[in-house]
This record gives sequence, C-alpha cells and structure tokens, in this order.
Amino acid sequence: MSTGATQRSYAMFYPLIAASAPGALPEGLLSLGQLLASLIVIYVASKLGGELALRLRQPAVLGELVAGLAVGISGLKLIDPTQPVLLLLAQVGVTLLLFEIGLESDLRGLLKLGPQAVAVAAVGMAVPFALGYGVMKFAGAGELLAIFVGASSTATSIGISAKVLSDLGYLKRTEGQIILGAAVLDDILGVIILSVVAGIAQGGSLELGEVARIVFSSLGFLVGAIVIGNRFMPVFLGIVRRLRTRGELLTASLVFAFALAYLAELLGSAAIIGAFAAGLVLAETDKRHDLEAQLRPVTDFFLPIFFITVGAGVNLALLGNQQALLLAGGLSVTAVLGKLVCGWAAFGVKANKLAIGAGMVPRGEVGLVFASVGLASGVLTGVNHTAVVIMVILTTFFGPLLLGLLLRREPVALTAGSS
Amino acid sequence: MSTGATQRSYAMFYPLIAASAPGALPEGLLSLGQLLASLIVIYVASKLGGELALRLRQPAVLGELVAGLAVGISGLKLIDPTQPVLLLLAQVGVTLLLFEIGLESDLRGLLKLGPQAVAVAAVGMAVPFALGYGVMKFAGAGELLAIFVGASSTATSIGISAKVLSDLGYLKRTEGQIILGAAVLDDILGVIILSVVAGIAQGGSLELGEVARIVFSSLGFLVGAIVIGNRFMPVFLGIVRRLRTRGELLTASLVFAFALAYLAELLGSAAIIGAFAAGLVLAETDKRHDLEAQLRPVTDFFLPIFFITVGAGVNLALLGNQQALLLAGGLSVTAVLGKLVCGWAAFGVKANKLAIGAGMVPRGEVGLVFASVGLASGVLTGVNHTAVVIMVILTTFFGPLLLGLLLRREPVALTAGSS
Repeated sequence: MSTGATQRSYAMFYPLIAASAPGALPEGLLSLGQLLASLIVIYVASKLGGELALRLRQPAVLGELVAGLAVGISGLKLIDPTQPVLLLLAQVGVTLLLFEIGLESDLRGLLKLGPQAVAVAAVGMAVPFALGYGVMKFAGAGELLAIFVGASSTATSIGISAKVLSDLGYLKRTEGQIILGAAVLDDILGVIILSVVAGIAQGGSLELGEVARIVFSSLGFLVGAIVIGNRFMPVFLGIVRRLRTRGELLTASLVFAFALAYLAELLGSAAIIGAFAAGLVLAETDKRHDLEAQLRPVTDFFLPIFFITVGAGVNLALLGNQQALLLAGGLSVTAVLGKLVCGWAAFGVKANKLAIGAGMVPRGEVGLVFASVGLASGVLTGVNHTAVVIMVILTTFFGPLLLGLLLRREPVALTAGSS
Repeated sequence: MSTGATQRSYAMFYPLIAASAPGALPEGLLSLGQLLASLIVIYVASKLGGELALRLRQPAVLGELVAGLAVGISGLKLIDPTQPVLLLLAQVGVTLLLFEIGLESDLRGLLKLGPQAVAVAAVGMAVPFALGYGVMKFAGAGELLAIFVGASSTATSIGISAKVLSDLGYLKRTEGQIILGAAVLDDILGVIILSVVAGIAQGGSLELGEVARIVFSSLGFLVGAIVIGNRFMPVFLGIVRRLRTRGELLTASLVFAFALAYLAELLGSAAIIGAFAAGLVLAETDKRHDLEAQLRPVTDFFLPIFFITVGAGVNLALLGNQQALLLAGGLSVTAVLGKLVCGWAAFGVKANKLAIGAGMVPRGEVGLVFASVGLASGVLTGVNHTAVVIMVILTTFFGPLLLGLLLRREPVALTAGSS
C-alpha cells in the first residue's frame, strides 16, 4: 500500500513542511512540527474537497481525492505523498476504516449475499485480467509483461469503494453488501495473485502448493476469526464491563481489532481483512453503537491522510507521455468495462447491476501496489509502468464518480450532526 | 521530548516486534504490522496498569507508568522506547492531552489564580535550581555542571501532572488550577532555560537580548493566541456550521489546535502550549461539550503511547551504580523538597498547599530532555548524567503517588461510562 511510491524519483518541493526546520532527523522521519503542518494541510484539503463534492451531489471521497491532487506533486506540493510516516498513518486509517465498515455491516446479510459476492469477485477479476492481458498482447508485449498488467487490472480498492458506499448510505443495501463482500474477496485474492506474479517475475516457478496454502490460510483466517471471535465475545465483554478507566470499550476493541489485523498479516493476508473481521464480530454485540460513536473520531483523524496522500501521489505529468497515454487509454477502457460487466454476475437478486460493477472499478492504492511491485521486479518499466499508473489513477477517480451518478440520492452525510 | 533517548546504547531485544518481519524499511521506521503489535502491547499494559492503580486508589497514570516499566527495557522488552515513530505519536498524544486539558479548563479561573500560579512557578523553579546547584557544588562539581543540574531540577512534566489532576477530578479545583497554570508557565520558561544553558554549554555567552526575545514571544504568543483566537471564534463556528461532511467539528478544531501548536513551535515555544491555548479558546464556545466527547477517543488512542514509552525508557540497571545512586539520592530529595515548598507560594487562597507542591514534582519527559541535551553538549556525562536520569525517574513516579495520597478521594474515572 505504498501509494505514490513510484513517484519517488520526481524532484519535489514542499514549502510548508520545510518551514518547520527539520533538524537532524533520520531520513524518512518527521518532527512533531512537520507532522502537525502536514495534518493541517491534509484536513483543510480534505474538508474543502469533501464539502465541494457534496454540493455537487458527489461522494465526499471523490472530492478528497481531487483535493489531494491539488495539494500534491501535481499541484501546490504542500504534501509529500512518499513520506513514510504519513503513509504508515494512512495505512492505520484504512485499517480503522475497515474495522468501522465491519462494525456497520451485517454478517448475516453478507453471508446471505455471499454466493453473489463470490460470483461478482470471480467475474470482476477474470474479465479485467483477460482484457488487460489481451490489450498488452495486442500491443506486442511478451507473456510475462502481459500477465503482470492483467493481474494489475484485477485490483479493487476496498477502502475507496467502502467509503463511497458509506458516504451515499448504501452500505446495507443489496448493492452495497455485494460490493463489500466482493471487494473483501478481491483483496484476499489480490494478495495471492500479487505473490504469484511476483514469484513468476523473479523466475520462480508457479508453486501450486504454496498458492493453495495462502488461499487456505487467508480464507481460513477470515472464517476462523469470525467463528472463534464470536465465541470469545462473552469473555471480551466481561473484561470490558470490569474496566473502570477511561476509554475502556474503545481501547479493548482496538486491541481486538489490531490483534486480528496483525494475525492476518502474519498469515500472509492483509491487515484490513483482520480489522474487517473484528468489526463484523463486534457488530453482533450490544456494544456496537457505543463503539461506533467512539471509533468515528479516531477514523476521522486518520482516514483523510489516506485519501489525500492517494490523490497527492498522482502525477499529471505522466499524461504528457503520448505513447503511454495511448496504451493507458486502452487499458483504462478495458479496466472499467471489465469491472462493469461483473455486476451482472450477481444472480437472482433485484439490484442496480451497473452500480455493483461501478463499485468494483476504483483500483486505488491496491493498483499502485501492483505497479510498484512490477517496477521493483523489473517487469513493468518505462511506458508500460506509466500506462498502468495512469489506468489506476483514472479508474480511482472514475469509479466514485460513476457510482455517485448511478446511486444519486440525498447523501447520508447531509444529515447534520452525524459525526 | 525524546524520552529514553539516553538509553539508546543499551542492547535491546524485542521479540514481539521482531516477529513482524521488518523487511527493507529504513532505520527508525515501522511497518504497519510492527506498529499494530506495539500498539497492542501499549494498550494492554496501559489498561492493566491503570486498572490496578485505580483498585489501589492511585491515579491511573501512575499504574500506566509502572506498566510501561514492566514492558520496557527494564522488564519484558516488548516495547522499544527509543522507536522514533512511537515517540512522534507519543508527542501527538501529549499535544492532544493539552488541547483537551485546555478545553476542560476555565480561562477565568486560571486568570483569577494567575498571580498565585506565577508565584508557585517562580518559587518552584528557583528553589529546585538553587538546591540542585548546591548539591553539585557540595559534591565538588564545576560551575557549568552545577548550573546544568540545577536547571534540570526546574522541570515539571505538565502532561503527567495534568493527567493526575484529571484522573482525580481535581482539574477545576483551586489546587488543580494553580498547578495547571504554574506547570504551563514552567513549561514556557523551561524551554527558555534549556536554550540558555545549552548556549552556555556550547561556550556561547549569555545573550540577554535573545533570552528577552524568547520570553517575550512565548508569553506574547500565549496571550495573543487567546485574545485573537477568541475574536476569530465566531468566524470559526460559522465555518463549522456550514460543513456537512462527517467529523466537521473535530476536524476543524484539530486544524485550529494544530495551527496554534505549530505556530508556538515556530516562535520558539512548545507545541503543547499552543494546543493548550486552542483548548482554552474553544472552551468558551457552546461546542465545548460536543468537542470534548469527540476528542476523548482520539486522545485515548494516542496518550497511552506517551505514558507507556516514558515508563518503558526507565533503566533500572542505573540503580546499580552506587556512586550515581548516592548523588541521585541527594538530588532527588532536594528535587522533591524544592517543589514541595513552592505550594506555600500560593498566597491568599485556601488550598492544600502540600498537594500543590506535589503536583509540581514529576519531571517526566521534560527532565529527560534536559538530561539528553546535557549529554549531547558534553556537560552532563557519566555518573552525573546517570544521577540526573535517576532523579527524573524517581520524581516522575513519586509525584503522582504523593498527589494521589494527598488528594485521595473517589477517583472521577470510577464513574462508569465516562468515556
């Protein structure tokens, strides 16, 4: 999830942050003053962008991404999207978001629509892979490169999609539940695909045993965490009831969520999957609403760092490369179409199928991880790497825009005092 | 505020964090998994310590400091108290705490007891300085060393004192208001004293003009921030009212607090002073209680990192140095007595004067900053440095203990659901 890591080579200039007299800090670290200055820029940009988007009847997150673009490397250069501490805090933000999304979700509803979610995820990965692979073959690429670009096309940014659904009040509707379930599966499978293609790129053979092991442990973790977590809940709530110090519910719940997130990472899955599972488990308890109220301010502290740094990492200068732009155009069209069609895999339910597909479109930080792994392994270089990054950028902005247009309603966040 | 930075040379071993496979991160940075693992340790230790302290009718923060000791370099080594990212987040925690303390404070009450606070701060800095200087002279030290140790004795940890007062429900009583006011002044003057002695240590002459400039800009900032901030509040509240996205009050208030904190640092004062001023200004608005409720979970996220890392940085092996222990004994007795007497400087009010003095006793992270600046400048080395660090440790634990005994009541945090 190192958003914008690929832009590290561009000369950058950050007046506001530099003003804070860094002193003798090791490379990559921030002083308190530098961090506070960055947070001020992030919060102001995030609010300006979010509010403007709401006025235009668009999801707030779309405005935040655009605002990030405005203060990032293609705009005012007030934020360094490659700053490692900011990226770490951005990851904490996405972890907290998925915890909160899990808490707001309904496990039974997710399970009921589970078969549809599996179908949507499967089609939503297979079609973009095939189309991306095909475009690259058509452009004369070799097998390995075509596979890598195809794999990059399978990503879905669960953070961005979930936030759009939450912004629009669609998290608990059929469309939202299917998108959420499919995006979680996409994320689980994405980690696996990434390790497989990275292995192939490094000349390793495709070890089916290893792939099976990761698939088994990732899916097994999700099921196990929910089943064992549910059993453990009476003990957990008993402990919380006995605590008398301040913040007892929030702190205990964070320990639970972070423990599952940490465990998910150890088992080769992603931290956000563990956090999501923790949210699902806690959603079944009577503490759900108290915890939601206490978790919101913490998420509100961290999450803007994620959206603003994703936007800030966008390098519009890439669009000047005509050759890359041509290839990116082809990849972007197939990347959008490939995800859009997957909505129709949601069989047997009455829902806006186009909107389901639109919810799977944004590649976001997950697509950037694919691009940077491809760059690091030497497979995805030059024009091809630039084209994939452009495709990721375009889908990241186009997805929320399309979803906002398809589900256009009075946004939920408009109910004042919801925070 | 680099707590425990002085212990960096001790060989350490952190099994839990190491288990998270650091990969190729630059030195000093953490992966998401490492950060989550550290937070789990911090939260569990903080809750265990805090709860135990409450059962023993002590301030929760005392238990958190002891728990930090248990998981730190002198105990289980589950936390690295020199980890730069954790120290940065700990500083964010103290900044948020002072914002919250300002929000819970009463500007009029502070101003009414202002003369008493000035007197307490003055006596509470002069007497410990003289006693520390005297002890060192008695031990045969040179002028420069004696001045440095005397200066180190003047520190007060506003974070620890304020949290104890908050834990015990004493923040708005006469004792609490005087301690808070005096601790804020101590912090403002401490920054100045530190820059003066560091200047002297580097062979520079004592430039009175420069000292006057810092005094003027620090105090002027505090007054100016409150006066101008109050004028700006109608505009600020007007903006907040127009925002419709989630977390509008919290985010806007954080921007205000972080801007003042950043400005305070730029002007040569400390970030926490700016955050405190922002809290005082917002306390005068009708948003006070809403904001308090939203700020609490965020503080609860960050603040335990501060108390646990302060405790974790304590190196009990230092107590094995008999020569240092003897000197530390003398310094600690005078450091405690020097602060205890300052309570009687609170003229013309009916209050527990001994408790006021006790509230000024903990040196905490401020004392460690003095010790590490002294070490870096070459003045405070070997036995003398160790003795000062031991003095800081002993006063940090003894202060809350004494204050808890003197103000022993039903702790406020015992009212369930206060978070």
